[in-house]
Amino acid sequence: MSLSTTPYKGARDFYPEDMQTQNYIFSLWREVAKSFGYVEYNAPIIEPIELYLSKTSEEIINEQTYAFEDRGGRKVTLRPEMTPTVSRMIAGKRQELAYPVRWFSIPNLWRYERPQKGRLREHWQLNMDLFGVKGVEADHELIYIADSIMQRFGAQRDMYTICINSRKLINYILQGILKLDKEQCQKTIRLIDKMHKMETDNFTALLKNVCGDKTEELICILSCQTLQALPDDVKLNDSYKEIHNLEMMLARNGVTNADFDITLMRGFDYYTDIVFEVFDANPENNRSIFGGGRYDGLIGQFDVEPVPTVGFGMGDVTFHEFLNSHKLLPDIKYDVDINVILIGDVYQPAQVVVKQLREGGLSVAIDSTKRKMDKQIQSAVKAGYPFVLFIGEQELEAGQFNLKELATGQEQKLTIEQIIDTIKS
Amino acid sequence: MSLSTTPYKGARDFYPEDMQTQNYIFSLWREVAKSFGYVEYNAPIIEPIELYLSKTSEEIINEQTYAFEDRGGRKVTLRPEMTPTVSRMIAGKRQELAYPVRWFSIPNLWRYERPQKGRLREHWQLNMDLFGVKGVEADHELIYIADSIMQRFGAQRDMYTICINSRKLINYILQGILKLDKEQCQKTIRLIDKMHKMETDNFTALLKNVCGDKTEELICILSCQTLQALPDDVKLNDSYKEIHNLEMMLARNGVTNADFDITLMRGFDYYTDIVFEVFDANPENNRSIFGGGRYDGLIGQFDVEPVPTVGFGMGDVTFHEFLNSHKLLPDIKYDVDINVILIGDVYQPAQVVVKQLREGGLSVAIDSTKRKMDKQIQSAVKAGYPFVLFIGEQELEAGQFNLKELATGQEQKLTIEQIIDTIKS
Repeated sequence: MSLSTTPYKGARDFYPEDMQTQNYIFSLWREVAKSFGYVEYNAPIIEPIELYLSKTSEEIINEQTYAFEDRGGRKVTLRPEMTPTVSRMIAGKRQELAYPVRWFSIPNLWRYERPQKGRLREHWQLNMDLFGVKGVEADHELIYIADSIMQRFGAQRDMYTICINSRKLINYILQGILKLDKEQCQKTIRLIDKMHKMETDNFTALLKNVCGDKTEELICILSCQTLQALPDDVKLNDSYKEIHNLEMMLARNGVTNADFDITLMRGFDYYTDIVFEVFDANPENNRSIFGGGRYDGLIGQFDVEPVPTVGFGMGDVTFHEFLNSHKLLPDIKYDVDINVILIGDVYQPAQVVVKQLREGGLSVAIDSTKRKMDKQIQSAVKAGYPFVLFIGEQELEAGQFNLKELATGQEQKLTIEQIIDTIKS
Repeated sequence: MSLSTTPYKGARDFYPEDMQTQNYIFSLWREVAKSFGYVEYNAPIIEPIELYLSKTSEEIINEQTYAFEDRGGRKVTLRPEMTPTVSRMIAGKRQELAYPVRWFSIPNLWRYERPQKGRLREHWQLNMDLFGVKGVEADHELIYIADSIMQRFGAQRDMYTICINSRKLINYILQGILKLDKEQCQKTIRLIDKMHKMETDNFTALLKNVCGDKTEELICILSCQTLQALPDDVKLNDSYKEIHNLEMMLARNGVTNADFDITLMRGFDYYTDIVFEVFDANPENNRSIFGGGRYDGLIGQFDVEPVPTVGFGMGDVTFHEFLNSHKLLPDIKYDVDINVILIGDVYQPAQVVVKQLREGGLSVAIDSTKRKMDKQIQSAVKAGYPFVLFIGEQELEAGQFNLKELATGQEQKLTIEQIIDTIKS
């Protein structure tokens, strides 16, 4: 039986063309992250399963982890998300670090899901986290960065919406105003998290089972489209002032497409305050692109003093789809400048020329197959090289070489310096 | 019980400082790879276990793979090496690709080994492969690249040795000259592969068990230190001419530290011809740094026409140790340029200034903790920021800001443009 050439189900091979696109996305991610003063970290893709037991959603742990036992009997898993890992690392140097700490990473994550549009089993995710800032400035910074990334890729304001909400505000509404108990609150939050995937009647009926005679008042509050529309007693709470402040800060920085959305919950249990999520504004493809929020409690789980934290995770699969559907991906040229074709047996003497071209900053491949010249040119065209350079004995003697641009067929006789100048310009 | 903050055994957390070093190594790897016309690819870290069954060494498969069953009952493993994966990918597009194909990747690989100096369970490895060139020019190119990488990191010729050998030559000696049968050959090759880890007497005894009365002649051949010293009948074989030619080509390109080593076998069973390995020349730490060779048979296993291939894999752990022990790692500065300290409640108006600095290409963090100023300066020093910039109402009005260099304590009052110029120069 011959071996299969397809990659593992739900994961991608990155052939050079795909890799160039991924590298383009990662390079702009890195550029924006660095401009905001974030530094890169990384960690092993294997973590002990305990790391996720307390805080990652139960669905992920029980049904979606790539969990296994290693040869030493340790129960481990490929990481399904990065937040527990980065919390572990911060906790590990809790005392040594100088706050605020700004970190980013672009790890690959694994979840055993049914592969579908926008969801694969392996994806790469930009994780950005700010540790050590209690105030809403931290939430502002992360949302502002998220927006700056969208802008850096050329997205217009009408292409995406940033929804923001406050878990603290929701808790105040449910506990402080509606006087629901803890269990009711938790169930209500889970229901609201799924309300947009349900029929309205169904949602109302399920909500009634949990909230009883408070249902009507809650539905009334949930129907508020803006912060201003909220009932006056809600506005008395500090969490209202914070999210209101956040909304103003974003608007003043030009982020005019950030909207309050009281129904935004975000799946993970570890969020404690402001949460946000960026959606594609195209009505035909109104998908979530990515999101994040504040999780002040996670680091304290490692038996160190808690650290206030805000972060987000931006997956490459959904982001790539967003860029694609809005035609924001540029044409990416082939990564190599020149393919050298040798005339006669000059592999050895040609090395001197090629070395100079490389030292001049060019990327140069040599066709060393000794095939007929037309075959070599055909291959160069098929591969997508922009230029072919011919090197033979005469050329080496004269110090001048024919450079052919494959797209136009144009050919020029040039010195090494001229070749470098021509291609760099 | 609180959670542990240590990473999985035998794998590394990359805190920002470590990550900067790794990024430095990877960036030079990429620079050299690109200058030789190689383009980057990647693939999922999970592969079906069958991919390794035929060619990767038995020790790795039976004792060292991170193998497990996924939730769908598939037998998979984290990749222990990249060569089977890249062969799979080339085979998958055997017809569509334009040859020669030059690919590189920097994947992470997993092996369940006892962690020790220079060996971890997770390491990252530069993989470079040239597909579609039958001649020794391909072997020359890969060894020349390996050498160029060493040189790019500042290694001197006396710091490392490149050992080269030919599996074809060895096969000719064992089969053609000594007339050993296939099984004897295989056993002999495995013995030679381990001879430097054995006492001479022990090696001779074991060899005698396999080779009988041919032992003396073989030991005589194995004692040859140069190609020239080999017996005349060996020199008649084509494989001798090839490796001789290779040695000359390398010397002409300035690679004066490439030495023939008839005892060099390389572990993997898939090598078919020239093999090479780079060793630290320090007599106190005479370790293998990395190696590679020709494996013409691997792609044919996927039921497509075979493709001649030469490649190498360069691991980050051993390479890092080499750089360290020869003091070739530069001091790497903190990745962020400026830490902004706010005087008073100016977080919002300061954004305009910070935005301009970022647009000017600087990496700028803001201390938004609202702590006392001396606390903020202490944190900036502890974090390692090179500059602190003070922004208050007066400064915003005047358009001039105090920039303090933390290493010298020097302070200057500058406009935004001047700040950008000062830090960039």
